[in-house]
Amino acid sequence: MRVVDLIRRKRDAAELLPEEIRYLIDGYTRGDIPDYQMSAWLMAAFLRGLNGAETAALTDAMLHSGQVLDFSDVAGRKVDKHSTGGVGDKTSLIIAPIVVAAGGVRVPMISGRGLGHTGGTLDKLESIPGFSVNLSLAEFRHALEAVGCALIGQTAEIAPADKKMYALRDVTGTVESRSLICASIMSKKLAEGIDALVLDVKVGSGAFLKTEADATLLAELMVETGRRMGKQVVALLTDMDQPLGRTAGNAMEVQESIDVLRGAGPADLRELCLVLAAWMLFLGQRVKSVEEGKSAAAELIASGRALEKFREIVRQQGGDARVIDNPKLLKSAAHTLDVVAAADGFIGATQCEQLGVAVVVLGGGREKKEDSVDPAVGLVFHKRIGDRVARGEALCTLHYNSDARLEEARRLVETAYVITPQAPGAERALVGRVIGG
Amino acid sequence: MRVVDLIRRKRDAAELLPEEIRYLIDGYTRGDIPDYQMSAWLMAAFLRGLNGAETAALTDAMLHSGQVLDFSDVAGRKVDKHSTGGVGDKTSLIIAPIVVAAGGVRVPMISGRGLGHTGGTLDKLESIPGFSVNLSLAEFRHALEAVGCALIGQTAEIAPADKKMYALRDVTGTVESRSLICASIMSKKLAEGIDALVLDVKVGSGAFLKTEADATLLAELMVETGRRMGKQVVALLTDMDQPLGRTAGNAMEVQESIDVLRGAGPADLRELCLVLAAWMLFLGQRVKSVEEGKSAAAELIASGRALEKFREIVRQQGGDARVIDNPKLLKSAAHTLDVVAAADGFIGATQCEQLGVAVVVLGGGREKKEDSVDPAVGLVFHKRIGDRVARGEALCTLHYNSDARLEEARRLVETAYVITPQAPGAERALVGRVIGG
Repeated sequence: MRVVDLIRRKRDAAELLPEEIRYLIDGYTRGDIPDYQMSAWLMAAFLRGLNGAETAALTDAMLHSGQVLDFSDVAGRKVDKHSTGGVGDKTSLIIAPIVVAAGGVRVPMISGRGLGHTGGTLDKLESIPGFSVNLSLAEFRHALEAVGCALIGQTAEIAPADKKMYALRDVTGTVESRSLICASIMSKKLAEGIDALVLDVKVGSGAFLKTEADATLLAELMVETGRRMGKQVVALLTDMDQPLGRTAGNAMEVQESIDVLRGAGPADLRELCLVLAAWMLFLGQRVKSVEEGKSAAAELIASGRALEKFREIVRQQGGDARVIDNPKLLKSAAHTLDVVAAADGFIGATQCEQLGVAVVVLGGGREKKEDSVDPAVGLVFHKRIGDRVARGEALCTLHYNSDARLEEARRLVETAYVITPQAPGAERALVGRVIGG
Repeated sequence: MRVVDLIRRKRDAAELLPEEIRYLIDGYTRGDIPDYQMSAWLMAAFLRGLNGAETAALTDAMLHSGQVLDFSDVAGRKVDKHSTGGVGDKTSLIIAPIVVAAGGVRVPMISGRGLGHTGGTLDKLESIPGFSVNLSLAEFRHALEAVGCALIGQTAEIAPADKKMYALRDVTGTVESRSLICASIMSKKLAEGIDALVLDVKVGSGAFLKTEADATLLAELMVETGRRMGKQVVALLTDMDQPLGRTAGNAMEVQESIDVLRGAGPADLRELCLVLAAWMLFLGQRVKSVEEGKSAAAELIASGRALEKFREIVRQQGGDARVIDNPKLLKSAAHTLDVVAAADGFIGATQCEQLGVAVVVLGGGREKKEDSVDPAVGLVFHKRIGDRVARGEALCTLHYNSDARLEEARRLVETAYVITPQAPGAERALVGRVIGG
């Protein structure tokens, strides 16, 4: 088998065999196939597309490029959730404790860091003093047994092909391919040793996929790929035309998560968490229906058991659990600045991606992988789409520590809000189509 | 400017600006842009295509990646010819001396080596004992002034971007793109410091471009690109459904070239040389029409002046000019083997590329760039398309030194001849469309 022939065949839109894809991925992971051949193949795959069988073969090859965890000896169903990324999306911090608190379901969660305009679960967790996301695989297993859940970063052992390919895709313009995204997500998630997976596929101005059609195709592909590999996978299309909840920024999002676990917090965030937790409980065979799962999740919040589980998780991973009762222990920014409405009217739409970029500009996210993150900075959103606003009224408050790029962030936020004289039409439902359910 | 954005834009079928293409090529030539980004861009360019303006910009950037020769102080028009490559194509060796012998036109010719199934002018010339194609640029200029012509290989100073990109394209499945082929050819040729260029675009079973439609598109693109860059360029579509002349193999082709210069040789080869030389004389402003050029070329052969010029060229580049009168001084192979007709009938067609591959298999060409070449081996063709053959009659004779891969070569030749019971219809004209004339 010659690599150049595999590149040429994909270039000419031929279907590659599973063993050909495995040859490519194994050779690349070992370093036998150079970056310049892989990047040519990735561009050919990007432009010609991979079909379902090729995508499953790619996922399988990437999954088996490293260690595949086996938690079959740990009691209970292992269920995880993955989001395709958005602004203000802190659901993982809320639903993991809810689901685990129900008992009988375990959540081995390998998460990512913020990249581009989206936040990352690991960065949010690290804003809790002492919290470590760098557990060894032995510690990961121990935490899963001891408290039912662990939230860690991708280790060198898990899907090393994905790690290498993702870095290459980032610099060769081959990120936004459905098949490559699917293989990247699913190879990591299936390596966690889970039985079932709930996918939160974001759609809208703050998502990577802006249209419902694109999001649906990705969701279908991921569900199909998971099933080909013997896993139960359900995908929910959820709205990302505006930020989720009232905050974006790491420490502020931890605080907001605690609020929801306490029974308070913004309605949209609470609702999405209940739905996602319900699906996890359903796939975890803990409840008989998604409706029952939703009631159970609400009850786990009301009883305080979900918050108690969150406390256990924080302690287990070395974090200072006192933050739960004393928000002052979380870092906060030194300064604030309100962005106000320039006219009377209604919030007609938000350029949600810009709001995510503003967080990055303030130092709360990464432009390059090696950037460090300021946990304290971020945005507090006062208005949602459809809200009436008066000229001069605050739309959003910037929390910042340095004014080096403050004006850039302020302009991004200001222009992200579209004020219209009339109230906008019906907005997208928070939870849309369910695929594979 | 970020390279990844240039890759993404070409991926999304946008037109790149000349300065963007220059940024890419300059950065790659300097080594600032890594192979893996260039290969992704090349694949995007391959699949999305480059338009005329982009192709001209690419050619220009590659041309200016190194030294652009300036022979404006050397008297006379500087005219060159380039062939897209075929089997048995030795026209450069014949037309360069004809054109220069006419006086007033100079031929600074930078040629290539055989690659794939095609032969290369440099390999043919090197079968003349002592002949050096590795002249310095100073020696190149001196030869041009002294005898009016020099035939050399690509130096490190000429279009280094092309050298680097060609090697990368070879291993990343991005060779067969019209725009990339055009830029590769034209950047090298325009760096020679010429005023005009005649392109011999081969079409048929022994050419890289098998169909007239493909060959026409490439020819049009090269003519357009040359004109955008202020050069007179004419492209002739010529037949490559069967080998040109009666031999393929380096030393044998030198002998056949000498035969034509002596007024003998095969009719097809002589005819194509007269036409190509006529166009060069016409573009070189030495004659008033192509017809006049053809007569002039025939006269230069008949008078012996073309052969005399060939002798001067050989001497100038260190070759043993005695080969012209004593063919025994050229290497010849130790053994011969006839491939005979399996049935009575007519030669209906030839798989001409296979005949070229057979020469390579015998050791007369290269499978990899670093392979060395045996000048003595090759094929002598006894039959042309349309010829009647009797069962057992020799179609072709293999000249070989080693029988290591003799059977492979024999089968390639045997299966290259298609024998039909009826005479085939009219064959393609030797010289077809003229583009840009």
